[in-house]
Amino acid sequence: MNNKPIKIGVAGLGTVGVGVLKILKKNQTRIANLIDRKLQVVAVSAKNQSKSRKVNLNGIEWVNNSLDLAARDDIDIVVEVIGGSSDPAKKLIELALSNGKHVVTANKALLAEHGHSLALMAEDKKVALRFEAAVAGGIPIIKTLTEGLTSNSIYRVAGVMNGTCNYILTRMEASGASYKKIFKEAERLGFVEADPQLDVGGIDAAQKLAILSSISFRSQIDFKSIQIEGIEKISLFDIENAKEMGYRIKLLGISQLTEDGIYQEVQPCLVPNSSPIAKLEGGTNMVIIDSDFIGRTALSGPGAGEGPTASAIVSDIIDVATGKISPVFGTKATSLKKVIKSTNGVNRCYYLRLALVDEPGALAKVATVLGKNKISIDRMRQKAHDGNSAPILIVTHETTYSAVKRALKEIENLEVCIKPPISIKIEQI
Amino acid sequence: MNNKPIKIGVAGLGTVGVGVLKILKKNQTRIANLIDRKLQVVAVSAKNQSKSRKVNLNGIEWVNNSLDLAARDDIDIVVEVIGGSSDPAKKLIELALSNGKHVVTANKALLAEHGHSLALMAEDKKVALRFEAAVAGGIPIIKTLTEGLTSNSIYRVAGVMNGTCNYILTRMEASGASYKKIFKEAERLGFVEADPQLDVGGIDAAQKLAILSSISFRSQIDFKSIQIEGIEKISLFDIENAKEMGYRIKLLGISQLTEDGIYQEVQPCLVPNSSPIAKLEGGTNMVIIDSDFIGRTALSGPGAGEGPTASAIVSDIIDVATGKISPVFGTKATSLKKVIKSTNGVNRCYYLRLALVDEPGALAKVATVLGKNKISIDRMRQKAHDGNSAPILIVTHETTYSAVKRALKEIENLEVCIKPPISIKIEQI
Repeated sequence: MNNKPIKIGVAGLGTVGVGVLKILKKNQTRIANLIDRKLQVVAVSAKNQSKSRKVNLNGIEWVNNSLDLAARDDIDIVVEVIGGSSDPAKKLIELALSNGKHVVTANKALLAEHGHSLALMAEDKKVALRFEAAVAGGIPIIKTLTEGLTSNSIYRVAGVMNGTCNYILTRMEASGASYKKIFKEAERLGFVEADPQLDVGGIDAAQKLAILSSISFRSQIDFKSIQIEGIEKISLFDIENAKEMGYRIKLLGISQLTEDGIYQEVQPCLVPNSSPIAKLEGGTNMVIIDSDFIGRTALSGPGAGEGPTASAIVSDIIDVATGKISPVFGTKATSLKKVIKSTNGVNRCYYLRLALVDEPGALAKVATVLGKNKISIDRMRQKAHDGNSAPILIVTHETTYSAVKRALKEIENLEVCIKPPISIKIEQI
Repeated sequence: MNNKPIKIGVAGLGTVGVGVLKILKKNQTRIANLIDRKLQVVAVSAKNQSKSRKVNLNGIEWVNNSLDLAARDDIDIVVEVIGGSSDPAKKLIELALSNGKHVVTANKALLAEHGHSLALMAEDKKVALRFEAAVAGGIPIIKTLTEGLTSNSIYRVAGVMNGTCNYILTRMEASGASYKKIFKEAERLGFVEADPQLDVGGIDAAQKLAILSSISFRSQIDFKSIQIEGIEKISLFDIENAKEMGYRIKLLGISQLTEDGIYQEVQPCLVPNSSPIAKLEGGTNMVIIDSDFIGRTALSGPGAGEGPTASAIVSDIIDVATGKISPVFGTKATSLKKVIKSTNGVNRCYYLRLALVDEPGALAKVATVLGKNKISIDRMRQKAHDGNSAPILIVTHETTYSAVKRALKEIENLEVCIKPPISIKIEQI
């Protein structure tokens, strides 16, 4: 080896942290030969030292306070895999950057909230802040957007970015079981975050979308302007109706340039069976990028798990170790513009599921509300009665998200409406 | 702009060369802001100056001899889009590298044949030799393998890498027309190379596979050790039978580590409908990478065309302009090992199509040949007679490629065999 080893401190020894140590061990010779220098983990820290972990920590110093990793002179790169948008993760990264250390993290929550200020800090100190692992696990989507597609102007980035939701939706379809039952199964298998809202509420997907959106559109990260809906409202009945219509239901994150700004949303969508995204099973993620000269590119792979996430972190470490230090979000942070949020959004058709009392005139009342909100009906179907309620399925012509929300609120207040009505966007992706 | 402009010479003004000029023009401000320096095309060369081209060459010097681009002091990067593995492309790249200029090329044929010696030259001179455009058009597969997945050990890289063949196969299926008819259609649409063997003979796909294989397995590029079969033998009858069995036929390039070395092959394969690769339509390419920690990643997008190919070239230019100069094939060329070719290959099931005379004992003779070659039959089916011939379809149990080839040769020599028998590998990818 001609070059000095790169010394690494790892903060957090959960699944991902342990995975990083495993990869650096198993592939160490190969990586050292590749980059002509050794990668050496010199110190680790985690909450509980006595916890048994399936990795050998011999020769690695244990540090009780993760913040100490940011202060040590013998550490070049701090790997932050503690998680969460608050301290100690936030403080650790800030301290490391201000001490001129490179940071590699998987922390989408922190980036979604504080990404811009952290990028300013890193670029000011001329160090790397890398986060390939924060979006879509092992898929090199950050590298693709920041480097691979830089020749193009991107106008839409979209995809399935939360494996847990995709697991739940595809398992409901395959097993014919309810949302509740499959959610519990996913929890039992360890697929659901401690706060389930992060997954099924669409927040995790939105954090990832915010990152992709910032890189794609050269704008400051803006999690708050994302329209978010989760999958809790999706019933087996919806999945089966979608299937009958030639669609599957996916939780999509979509960010796109529109005439009046950037429209970012995370919500369950009906996507046509013929779309590659419709075919995603289980925890697989897929990101689709539409740009001016290439057209459409798609990347897919495992969106989570020890191996994929840790791989992305180690790939970042290798880039940093070989001196590849570029703007955090692809464009210099000082040049990133504030997001101009699209107010009009994007017109789409919607699938509506209503439960009305089975009496004359009920449907007329719904039709009146839709008409008042300028929503016209493409198709309608009354399904077999379910007790005293008549389930009505409607596919609308193209309309706006806000018109649908407004109409649904009014319909919910009608006396003939038995259960809260449901809308799912139809996305011809 | 804080930095001096990067000056570019473009050799070749076919579709791709013109595309490069268009992108550099349309996205010039965005790219300049991104990398804090201008990209400036100072000179171009092509065979025919008087040819009308849909791009403005004002302010760009015309050079009659492309080799002069390699000699000029005012050029930092030479873009070679002449094509072909011989001169002038070869001489131009060698000259440019030896003069210390960076080279960006789309020339898979040249790389497949001379990639190793060119990489040695480039690395000796510490300049970049980049070729994202040489494989799978706009899909950033080279970057993904050389940088995005470096943390992993790859054990298989496979995919659909020739859009023309995929166009022909999917069009035959959709239209019910013969290979011959659709081949002519593809030719008329300009999808087929001047020498059709490059496309339908599998050579273009093999050149691309050789490049991916070298990067993935850190071996010297070795086009010659690839087992190549084209799609000319595929009939509509095969496509329809495959469909009945739940498969689609794709021209796959596969390179994988086996116990006794690297096995590289390009051949038409039956792939199960459920595989994402089965769903590729038209000219779309897909590369699937299997590696130790991530598992499976897949990238898809347009495999050819002005926009995608030129995009890949401009992305390379941007990388070079920002100082990203790394080993040509990911690993230092002096460390790349010679390929140890697998002699055993990989065992697979095969689909066989035979045309036998319709007389007692014909099938017994075929079965004897198969048995002698240790090929056992999983399923067999006799289709409706076609004149005096009885088409027989056989699906074998797992066997070797060489056993199948040997058996088919013997069957062809049997008197009961009317037409040359056909084998197609079944790949459960």
